[in-house]
Formats: sequence, structure tokens, C-alpha cells
Amino acid sequence: MNTFVPSERSRVKRLFKRAHYDADTVHRLIDEIGTGSVGYVIKGQPYVTPTLVWREGERVYWHGSSASRMLRKVHGGVPVCVNVFHLDGFVLARSGMHSSVNYRSATLFGTAALIKDAAEKEASLKAFLDRFVPGRWETLRPVQAQELKATSVVGMTIEEASAKIRTGHCEDDEEDYALDIWAGLVPVRTVIGEPEDDPRLKPGVPRPEHLKGIRIG
Amino acid sequence: MNTFVPSERSRVKRLFKRAHYDADTVHRLIDEIGTGSVGYVIKGQPYVTPTLVWREGERVYWHGSSASRMLRKVHGGVPVCVNVFHLDGFVLARSGMHSSVNYRSATLFGTAALIKDAAEKEASLKAFLDRFVPGRWETLRPVQAQELKATSVVGMTIEEASAKIRTGHCEDDEEDYALDIWAGLVPVRTVIGEPEDDPRLKPGVPRPEHLKGIRIG
Repeated sequence: MNTFVPSERSRVKRLFKRAHYDADTVHRLIDEIGTGSVGYVIKGQPYVTPTLVWREGERVYWHGSSASRMLRKVHGGVPVCVNVFHLDGFVLARSGMHSSVNYRSATLFGTAALIKDAAEKEASLKAFLDRFVPGRWETLRPVQAQELKATSVVGMTIEEASAKIRTGHCEDDEEDYALDIWAGLVPVRTVIGEPEDDPRLKPGVPRPEHLKGIRIG
Repeated sequence: MNTFVPSERSRVKRLFKRAHYDADTVHRLIDEIGTGSVGYVIKGQPYVTPTLVWREGERVYWHGSSASRMLRKVHGGVPVCVNVFHLDGFVLARSGMHSSVNYRSATLFGTAALIKDAAEKEASLKAFLDRFVPGRWETLRPVQAQELKATSVVGMTIEEASAKIRTGHCEDDEEDYALDIWAGLVPVRTVIGEPEDDPRLKPGVPRPEHLKGIRIG
């Protein structure tokens, strides 16, 4: 599948020029942003749970405790909406109307279900850590069977998706460009800070190279 | 109201030691984070829309085009869940099980409805800009009546809310502290970058002091 075909559910209603339905763009945003908001319904009430998300092919994954509300709910397979979003900056125009923000956003629709097979679950948790801290998994103490049981992983095949991206400067009303008002961009970025050693770090254990590979945002 | 009384809907199910129900904490997180994910239901299907959110007292607000799916849906007043979330860092433990993230999150429940009164709408848009770029509103070209019509503002009184915060280092299994594995924190921060002038900025217009007051994350 190279392009998601938008239905009433996924078609971007506003500012279609910012809309993208190609799988490459949707996948790239999931991979870049890394944080997601999972929306689901229980007895007519909407819930939104923030989480880290990762992707393999046409499937997105997230994880959590087996006791969490969201993960118990999706046990049997339920309709879910996942949004990944990153604010990239403020677009400050000469009027309130044309002031905006730059951002990357992708909204994914599908049916979420727990991954029950232990081997598949362990593989997906490795893929999870590889996404955020590539190379770290192999350095860790191996996973124990009861830890796998206490962890739930949810997978969702992306049935429909849309992306929306805004970049660049404002588009002011033509006559407003003559005003003595400052306009421009103020970028917003996610940055990875300097690592801090655990207070109980065993003496002599060095900081691993894989810390330099952390990516999010 | 000083404390939200958790119901089945808002009670934190997992890791209650990270849970907060006091209004001060919930309000502080809304005010600090500034981005929100709005969850709502249309014909049983969950939707999540990212947006900027701001607060006045017990009410949260967001805005958008009058043509947006979300804003048309909430026209009559619908149950909504708003989550504000900020990732503050990776907590890298000696095992996958105890690896985690530091974060601030607040989940708000209520009934969202459009603000119909033009004066209230304009006041709330001023409050919006004051939240993100304090002092800028007064410097802009005044809002026109048709611009107000094209903009929708949604308000929601917070009926129930919970906050969840994780800070600090990992809690590894006692025997794992002896392993030759690096553990620690890797902070993640939202930073405001250097402003960029609009390419059509009128010559001689200086960068305003209010750019230094931008706050988010």
C-alpha cells in the first residue's frame, strides 16, 4: 500500500493543502515523532492515553502495564485513533487571524489488539527499545518470563491515515505587510539533554555509545 | 474546588503513587505544557485532534477553524477527554522491565461547547495569545468581525481530572545493581529557538521584547 485512501473518517477537512495521505509521509512522521495519543471509547466516553509508539511496516505498537485501563479495554480488539504530533514552532503574523503554528501530525485509524504470543511480544519490545535507543537491548539483563506477562503490547494495523504538516512563514493579508508589526517564526524543538548517571551506577561502568543514538521529536 | 474527586472514569489505575488529583497540580500541568490532544466520539469512532490549549480558572479552551470536524462536532456540547503530556526524559534501567520515561501528564474530562458570544470569543483569543506570547496581542492589527466568525473557540469546564507525573531515576531489581550495565537518565526538553524574521518584514521593524516571553512544554 503506497497511499491511504481517505474516507469520511480520515479525510482532512480543513486546509487540504497541508494534507498528505501517502504511506511514506505517514510512516516517517510516526518514526520521527515517537510519542502518540491513543484515543478509544468506553461506554460512549472518550479517553486519550499518551504513550510511546513505534512502527513495523503497516503496524504501529505501544505498550504498557497489563493492568492499565487502555490495555484492558483493547483486549478483544477495539476501534482506536492514534495521533502523533510535534509542534515545530510559532508562526507569528501581523494579525491574530493569520498567526499559526508549524507542526507535523499524523492520525491513524485501526483496530488495536493485544499481542498474546510471548515470542512476538518479546520481539516487539526489542523493536521498541531499538526505535528509541538503538543498540541498547543487547546490553541489558535478559527479560524474564514473568516480566513479559506483566507487560502488554498492543499492535494496530493502520487501516486509514492522514498526515498534516505546516512549515514556513505566515501568509498575512496583503495590506498588513505595510504595518509596523514584527512577524516571523519562533522555532520549537525537542532536544536530548546530557545523560545523568544513576546514583547507584557500578563504579567503572562507562557511558555507552548508544546514548548518542537516541531519537525523538 | 481544590481537589478533583476521582470516579471510575478518572481514577489512575496503574502506579497510583504517580497520581495527583489536586487542582493546583492539574492546572499547573495544563499551563506548563500548552499542547493538548482532544479526544471525542462520532458514531462510536474515537478521534484525537492535537491543538494548543489554554486555561482560565476551571475552564480549558482550544480553538480552530469553524469548518473543522472536531469543532463542528462539539457544537451542541459533547463529552470530551483532553490529555496534556510532555515527555521529560528516558529512564534507562539495567533491564527492559524497569526502563521507563519521565513525564508530566494530565487528563481532563468534561463537556465541550462552542463559545458563541463574540465578545467572549475575542477575549478568549486574547487570553490564548497571552498564554503563549504574553504582550503580543496589543501589538497586532485589530481583529475583524469576519475573522471572529471564521474562528471557533471551544470551552470546557473541567469536571474531573487526574495528573500523573514521573521523575527521577530507575528502580532496578536489587540484584541488578551489581551488573556491569550503564543506567541513568537522558533528559528530553522542549526549547524555544532563535526567532527568524518574516522575509517580507518591513525594514526597520525591531524584534519585540515579547518574543522572550514565549513559554511551552
